Amino acid sequence: MMKLGLFLHGPGQHIAAWRDPAVDPAAGQSLRHYVQLAQLGERALFDFVFNADTQATFGPDDVEVWKRNTVSQRIEPLTLLGALAAVTQHIGLVATATTTYLEPFHVARIFASLDQLSEGRTGWNLVTSSAPAEALNFSHAAHAAHGDRYDRAAEFAQVVLGLWDTWEDDAFVMDKAAGLFFDPAKLHMLNHKGKHFSVRGPLMIRRSPQGRPVIVHAGQSEAGRTLAAQAAEVVFSVEQDIEKAREFYADLKARAARCGRAPDSIKIMPGVQAVIGRSKAEAEDRYGRMQSLIHPEVGAAYLSEMLGTDISGYPLDGPLPEVPLTNSQQGRQKVIIELARRENLTIRQLYQKVAGTRAHRTICGTASDIADSLEHWYKTGAADGFNILSLTYPDGFIDFADQVVPELQRRKLFRTQYEGRTLRENLGLPRPANRFVEAKRQTAAE
Amino acid sequence: MMKLGLFLHGPGQHIAAWRDPAVDPAAGQSLRHYVQLAQLGERALFDFVFNADTQATFGPDDVEVWKRNTVSQRIEPLTLLGALAAVTQHIGLVATATTTYLEPFHVARIFASLDQLSEGRTGWNLVTSSAPAEALNFSHAAHAAHGDRYDRAAEFAQVVLGLWDTWEDDAFVMDKAAGLFFDPAKLHMLNHKGKHFSVRGPLMIRRSPQGRPVIVHAGQSEAGRTLAAQAAEVVFSVEQDIEKAREFYADLKARAARCGRAPDSIKIMPGVQAVIGRSKAEAEDRYGRMQSLIHPEVGAAYLSEMLGTDISGYPLDGPLPEVPLTNSQQGRQKVIIELARRENLTIRQLYQKVAGTRAHRTICGTASDIADSLEHWYKTGAADGFNILSLTYPDGFIDFADQVVPELQRRKLFRTQYEGRTLRENLGLPRPANRFVEAKRQTAAE
Repeated sequence: MMKLGLFLHGPGQHIAAWRDPAVDPAAGQSLRHYVQLAQLGERALFDFVFNADTQATFGPDDVEVWKRNTVSQRIEPLTLLGALAAVTQHIGLVATATTTYLEPFHVARIFASLDQLSEGRTGWNLVTSSAPAEALNFSHAAHAAHGDRYDRAAEFAQVVLGLWDTWEDDAFVMDKAAGLFFDPAKLHMLNHKGKHFSVRGPLMIRRSPQGRPVIVHAGQSEAGRTLAAQAAEVVFSVEQDIEKAREFYADLKARAARCGRAPDSIKIMPGVQAVIGRSKAEAEDRYGRMQSLIHPEVGAAYLSEMLGTDISGYPLDGPLPEVPLTNSQQGRQKVIIELARRENLTIRQLYQKVAGTRAHRTICGTASDIADSLEHWYKTGAADGFNILSLTYPDGFIDFADQVVPELQRRKLFRTQYEGRTLRENLGLPRPANRFVEAKRQTAAE
Repeated sequence: MMKLGLFLHGPGQHIAAWRDPAVDPAAGQSLRHYVQLAQLGERALFDFVFNADTQATFGPDDVEVWKRNTVSQRIEPLTLLGALAAVTQHIGLVATATTTYLEPFHVARIFASLDQLSEGRTGWNLVTSSAPAEALNFSHAAHAAHGDRYDRAAEFAQVVLGLWDTWEDDAFVMDKAAGLFFDPAKLHMLNHKGKHFSVRGPLMIRRSPQGRPVIVHAGQSEAGRTLAAQAAEVVFSVEQDIEKAREFYADLKARAARCGRAPDSIKIMPGVQAVIGRSKAEAEDRYGRMQSLIHPEVGAAYLSEMLGTDISGYPLDGPLPEVPLTNSQQGRQKVIIELARRENLTIRQLYQKVAGTRAHRTICGTASDIADSLEHWYKTGAADGFNILSLTYPDGFIDFADQVVPELQRRKLFRTQYEGRTLRENLGLPRPANRFVEAKRQTAAE
């Protein structure tokens, strides 16, 4: 079965969504708005909601551009998902947390806590910070290099995974009469000492109902693919082109196999912005109206940020100049540059494609057209499912839930009820064994 | 009017609460349990729930003791309060976050986020980490010295308060037609560069509905009182004795006045464990039964931890030996040592008093007895309100809500409906002006 995620993004995914007459421009910081979306997603049987994050927004030079947009406002994802845990029962709760500026003990604890509160519905999108501005909010003089960030991220992940195994599943005997709360033989201090971190433990939250939170990663660089193949269970991507998507899919499944993992234990879920109309023309018209709301300054600035190179001085109706890959989100940079070359786009055409979709693939069409495209990608080795983006929230997502989901169900591509209790069960991922229990077993077997 | 807080603590405040036959021993990690308590607190018109925290629990040497207790389990407070924000409308949400091992940008953001989600009901209990074990979870070789921690804490607080003023209250014009989301003249980069931190900003969450989250502090040392007088709006304490409580109250109000603050702008709320019975004898009997459930190893170990000195080798039925003040929670250490000397207690008697109450004052009696005591402290300059602890949750708190609250209302000491929308309004605290707006006004006036 196809897996589906709902990508939360304030008043909408489109960079000009807040200007749509039907949209609440303050939705990005409204609990009521997110509760409505999460409950709609749950009614539509989605696997999870996903809340992306960054620890910084623009700098002083960019104010004149970003005053035209909602990027200045970004609710903190873990407090938000805590709130959504209390008003949903089934849908998964996935959030980004950076390995670059937070501490692994804190990240392990906060996701473990959310996982207890939600009874096993949490996923951690493990990222390295890509925005140089983040360094300036965390007392760092400069942004770390790409390779160094991945080196730290790999060790960070090992610490977090180890802390999540602090307690064996049946450690808590809670024998009131004997006054014994846990069995000390089933507690494991981590005692990690590495290049970047030294963390003793124990984590003071019992093992997750789903073994551990689901690990998500979205890196497409060489280092990102290596980390994903080792540790990720869900992989987000921004592929525009089915051939490239199949290549990425096959590459990642092969890398995972080389790490001793079953191909099924890693789910690849490209982002798709679905624009739905009663006809394809109606959907395209809807998208065009939204594109026309992008202020040119915002479009050029967004493109510069995505590329890591300031292109605001070039003529909007000329071609994209040669731009180098930089120390930030190289995978996404390649996708954008290739798109410009392949379709021979002007800067204006490119920012309209990229800023509007935030680099994700956009499909305009009827519910049946959308389902056709998702089915084609799903059945031909390009995706295990999709992270669904809508131009505006909640309206764009209501269209998807009401029209595309039933179509996918008719085609037997999507569930008609949740398969399990936890996010991991719904995604069809194996429940990981506790590393310390495994080690004991191996010692006993030798 | 008297202010009341509900001190959340898993299955109960008493160290042996989990062994009570009526208690769910796993309550400490159950969302359902906390939702029930927060909703009970809201029905009883409490000002806030309070979730204490630490970033570590015991070490490997202590496992044999702590296997007998619930200290191994501690849910992360901000994810929990996020959840409670979604299922309550009025009650305040106060949590501890350490200034020693977290980053000010992260703490500012997470509380600002919770404050948006709860529409102005958040408070931050600013602490310095007191447990040396915390250092070991954050890649520090050793615990920082008391003075250094307070030096960092003071700068940390300045950064957080500054970030919370990033946006003026009316910065977000959200003019769809003009494509203008905010007014750049009302955005303020912090650009903090200090001894411990360098933080640029902006915070990407708009200013709080209550101006900023309420600042809480519980330090009783000289450095703690200095920080509280400068920055705290609510002060928690563990005074056992009314004379000492009055002294503390008068001292803190005088210090606040010397910082140019109105005495009313700082609310002093000692912790009180209320054990309620139909008669005083019944309440004492209830308390005695709970005390008898404290395992001697747990009692001695708890006392050692509170004192920062291992006293487990001394005879349980002999006196407390001379113990030095250490680099950890000196205020609490003094209270415990004075209690032992004043009442001439054996180690066993002392741990029964201290471990059972977690060093807070305990009153056993009828609802009327409890109300008498609270009224006396409140009316004679010892307290502006109380942080209420119950032996077991939810039962102990249900007794307080059903019996003591109506008695306080009859005496016109406690509200019969919430006064305002925000935590700050209910506590009767002034809404702080934005520092950058104030600076502009002063410049204009000169």
